[in-house]
Amino acid sequence: MTPEEQAEIDALRARQTPTRRVVAPGLEARLYTPHPVLDHGFVRVIDYMGDDGAIVQAARVSYGPGTRHTRDDAGLIRYLMRHWHSTPFEMCEIKLHVKLPIFVARQWIRHRTANVNEISARYSILDREFYIPRPEHLAAQSASNRQGRGEVLEGEEAARVLAILKEDSARAYDHYEAMLSTDGQQGLARELARMNLPQNIYTQWYWKIDLHNLFHFLRLRADAHAQHEIRAYAGVIGEIVADWVPLAWAAFEDYRLRGAHLSGKALDALRRMLRGETVTREQSGMSPGEWREFESLLRG
Amino acid sequence: MTPEEQAEIDALRARQTPTRRVVAPGLEARLYTPHPVLDHGFVRVIDYMGDDGAIVQAARVSYGPGTRHTRDDAGLIRYLMRHWHSTPFEMCEIKLHVKLPIFVARQWIRHRTANVNEISARYSILDREFYIPRPEHLAAQSASNRQGRGEVLEGEEAARVLAILKEDSARAYDHYEAMLSTDGQQGLARELARMNLPQNIYTQWYWKIDLHNLFHFLRLRADAHAQHEIRAYAGVIGEIVADWVPLAWAAFEDYRLRGAHLSGKALDALRRMLRGETVTREQSGMSPGEWREFESLLRG
Amino acid sequence: MTPEEQAEIDALRARQTPTRRVVAPGLEARLYTPHPVLDHGFVRVIDYMGDDGAIVQAARVSYGPGTRHTRDDAGLIRYLMRHWHSTPFEMCEIKLHVKLPIFVARQWIRHRTANVNEISARYSILDREFYIPRPEHLAAQSASNRQGRGEVLEGEEAARVLAILKEDSARAYDHYEAMLSTDGQQGLARELARMNLPQNIYTQWYWKIDLHNLFHFLRLRADAHAQHEIRAYAGVIGEIVADWVPLAWAAFEDYRLRGAHLSGKALDALRRMLRGETVTREQSGMSPGEWREFESLLRG
Amino acid sequence: MTPEEQAEIDALRARQTPTRRVVAPGLEARLYTPHPVLDHGFVRVIDYMGDDGAIVQAARVSYGPGTRHTRDDAGLIRYLMRHWHSTPFEMCEIKLHVKLPIFVARQWIRHRTANVNEISARYSILDREFYIPRPEHLAAQSASNRQGRGEVLEGEEAARVLAILKEDSARAYDHYEAMLSTDGQQGLARELARMNLPQNIYTQWYWKIDLHNLFHFLRLRADAHAQHEIRAYAGVIGEIVADWVPLAWAAFEDYRLRGAHLSGKALDALRRMLRGETVTREQSGMSPGEWREFESLLRG
Repeated sequence: MTPEEQAEIDALRARQTPTRRVVAPGLEARLYTPHPVLDHGFVRVIDYMGDDGAIVQAARVSYGPGTRHTRDDAGLIRYLMRHWHSTPFEMCEIKLHVKLPIFVARQWIRHRTANVNEISARYSILDREFYIPRPEHLAAQSASNRQGRGEVLEGEEAARVLAILKEDSARAYDHYEAMLSTDGQQGLARELARMNLPQNIYTQWYWKIDLHNLFHFLRLRADAHAQHEIRAYAGVIGEIVADWVPLAWAAFEDYRLRGAHLSGKALDALRRMLRGETVTREQSGMSPGEWREFESLLRG
Repeated sequence: MTPEEQAEIDALRARQTPTRRVVAPGLEARLYTPHPVLDHGFVRVIDYMGDDGAIVQAARVSYGPGTRHTRDDAGLIRYLMRHWHSTPFEMCEIKLHVKLPIFVARQWIRHRTANVNEISARYSILDREFYIPRPEHLAAQSASNRQGRGEVLEGEEAARVLAILKEDSARAYDHYEAMLSTDGQQGLARELARMNLPQNIYTQWYWKIDLHNLFHFLRLRADAHAQHEIRAYAGVIGEIVADWVPLAWAAFEDYRLRGAHLSGKALDALRRMLRGETVTREQSGMSPGEWREFESLLRG
Repeated sequence: MTPEEQAEIDALRARQTPTRRVVAPGLEARLYTPHPVLDHGFVRVIDYMGDDGAIVQAARVSYGPGTRHTRDDAGLIRYLMRHWHSTPFEMCEIKLHVKLPIFVARQWIRHRTANVNEISARYSILDREFYIPRPEHLAAQSASNRQGRGEVLEGEEAARVLAILKEDSARAYDHYEAMLSTDGQQGLARELARMNLPQNIYTQWYWKIDLHNLFHFLRLRADAHAQHEIRAYAGVIGEIVADWVPLAWAAFEDYRLRGAHLSGKALDALRRMLRGETVTREQSGMSPGEWREFESLLRG
Repeated sequence: MTPEEQAEIDALRARQTPTRRVVAPGLEARLYTPHPVLDHGFVRVIDYMGDDGAIVQAARVSYGPGTRHTRDDAGLIRYLMRHWHSTPFEMCEIKLHVKLPIFVARQWIRHRTANVNEISARYSILDREFYIPRPEHLAAQSASNRQGRGEVLEGEEAARVLAILKEDSARAYDHYEAMLSTDGQQGLARELARMNLPQNIYTQWYWKIDLHNLFHFLRLRADAHAQHEIRAYAGVIGEIVADWVPLAWAAFEDYRLRGAHLSGKALDALRRMLRGETVTREQSGMSPGEWREFESLLRG
């Protein structure tokens, strides 16, 4: 971050204005500050709407006069989460400024229920910043899982990979600049020159999403099956959400992050096991893969 | 409104909390206050995110370093509106509490890109409040337009209509209560009893939407072809938006409310007329209906 | 159904045209035929796109060259369902023509990710058709569940309710016609007259949705907590889907309809129970409501 | 295309099955065949639902009994397009298989209202295929428009750019393979190795969208302001749509592609010009940029 950018953030943070709106103290403390992710990325909270109370308020329109309001907020929020109510959580909204490598951005954008404004490489010249993994994150293709990572690469191979990534990034950017240059030539259009840049270059966007859809994003992207790099962002955003709506976060953590979904076959097997019966995979009707996941779930 | 509700609103409005977020003074003044619509309806602003500056900020991520920021905010916002950019306007969000008749709610809900929490008549007993039009809004079926209203009804016919609407509403509600009553009987389930209620009964919801989609809603529902009752709501919401994001509202007013879309055929005719030629409908290739709309547009 | 409508359907069904597209035989057999629901409602399949194979095909773009295609279709579809993959299921689409009471339509429309064209009571005069429940569906408000039904109403009370519903419907429709009539008067605009109609009157729409979102609809609306009347529609649509995409339906049935979601607390309790420990509600950290649902789940 | 792929397509095209659904002959002729775009890209129609008649059918649910059906289909479709009705067009759906460079895919995916299944570079090894522009498409940055292209590059500069793009693509792919290789090393995980690939590498996806949203896509991406490379795809898709729904396409072409939107200020100026007055930019209240666009529109 440049000193100018730091000064701008300090100025934004110094300014306080009275509002009649609901205020979430845990987020106010985080507003505008860049939370670092990976080697050059960050997540910044730019704005938000609502708090735990807004979820309860929206749900209780559904109850209105004629019902009693005895449930406490935490209990109601757990109830809403347990029964997959989505609309009360949609009443909270957050806007983030995110800096991230393009290959992460391509996974991220698959979540369609968000508002996005990305820096345009048709208009702007991208910065010379590339994601280069730390050696401990350089892993081999998994042998058992076609989409995942296996063991960490050994020293020499890791060094070779890092050298390739660094050299190719630097050369691609040098050539990007050379094509754009108007020094003694016309200079290639930015919208064309950018195509030479590899997918570990960083981009930036404003990303605005409601809490229900953010939870859906976090459930998929904080999952152990997600790629390490996007999980790093999901992890930071999770900490932000925990400060913003602590009751909703606690419910989400218990039901979604720590919870699990069981099929009818799995429930049948489970009921028999609880009655003391021994159940084999063949009896359960599950495939080997399902059975493996089921056993691992029961072990915890 | 009951004194308790008024006291609750007064208490909400009296509370001010410092925030680091962007504040829109024009909306702060309106927060929580019910703006009356029709005979028993209202629109209340419950929360909001962003202001005109947030639109500009989001658009300029698209410009970023490497471009100059010489355009002033109003000009940029007009440019975005003119070229149908939608994502910068999506960065602003507003949450309303609305009380409205069910037949209006049924038109309104067709706008799918919003978040809604409606009071549930499965859980709650609805209030005895019905929309009864003012006599000057009791119009005959239009002779020329199959979907619209024609002349205002004459005295006796209007009186007959009003009497029917009032009596049927009252009787339906009496029967609703009679079916629900547990006095000497089991009492019908609320989810069943409600089906006896006519569509002019009032319901309530929390409705949250971004500015781009709100403009789309207003363009369709503030239009002369929209039904009077929903236009009444669109009118009040328009005034709220004008106080919230005055620059965006001015651009919307000029481009969408006062502007018009011309077909290629219409543009061809227009160019010839500007060259001094006389153009007939037959030459233009337009249908009688299109030609009528075209002529009316040129008259202003 | 009128003889003209029946003749039209017969003509549609008699026509067969060759296509290069994928064909789902189970749906071809059902095309255009009204499947009755409630007393006057129906569901008709008007068009569809894709079959089980289309789900597999879309998922395998994700595998492409470089991976082996050993998983069989049923196994892959179960895998996608188990791991909450949504996009392959979105590749199938169905279009239904549905006739349904307005209070059911109001619940239904809350599912926003569908395309809808509803008959407009601003343009058209609605038919004199009202939903009158069968006596065995006239239930009292549930004592234990604020949103549900309890015991069936006893004879005399049921008779009284039915009489009210029938008389109020008939009277409301008589008055609707009287207000619309142009016999010796101008005739009230349709968009106004309709507000006198109760919510058990039938409406119609074309409803088009992809399979992923249809499964979401069915999971919520075929659930025991959904209101009986919308469950009746969900039940018929479920049978249609089972004929259309039998492999996807089987996976949906096992994972969603017969499956269940467990919280982290529930999984912890379960693991201890499987180890032979006795777990009390207090130890589990669950609320009384959660514990009740948990115990009921384990009983099956 | 490999001979195996060609044989597969031939086999798909040779198969015809009777269906009761609506069939669009113009699309049947195109099904499965790759329509080439750019140097290695294509668009293939995989499936579709509906035709011009389906639009009319959906719109007329809105008319139903009680209205007359005198408007002919073409006129009704033009009316719907003129008055921005969207839901009838949503009743048609198309599924495409598209091969396209990543930088084009990144623009394309911004259209959120579509269903997408993209080949995953976490699972699969991408092919060695890169977009290299033809010399006549290598343009300089525009001097007047920050986001566009200006003049075509002169010979030597163009040659230098092409050499860079080709060499960097080839080297990046060589290194991609070297990092993936398990020959004497563990082999880097695919999800990491891919980040070295530049954005002109080709990807593939299945893309399914309804006609209303497809028209919105085409309006933005077939526009003169869109980047040449995505316009090439929009052009081919436009030809496909013209064969699929000829009436809707004709209306779209006249109202959206050849039409224009005028602001209130522009309409005021126009009305005065039609009355023979001379209007200057200053009198019009338009900015220089708006006035330039306005004058250019009137010239045609």
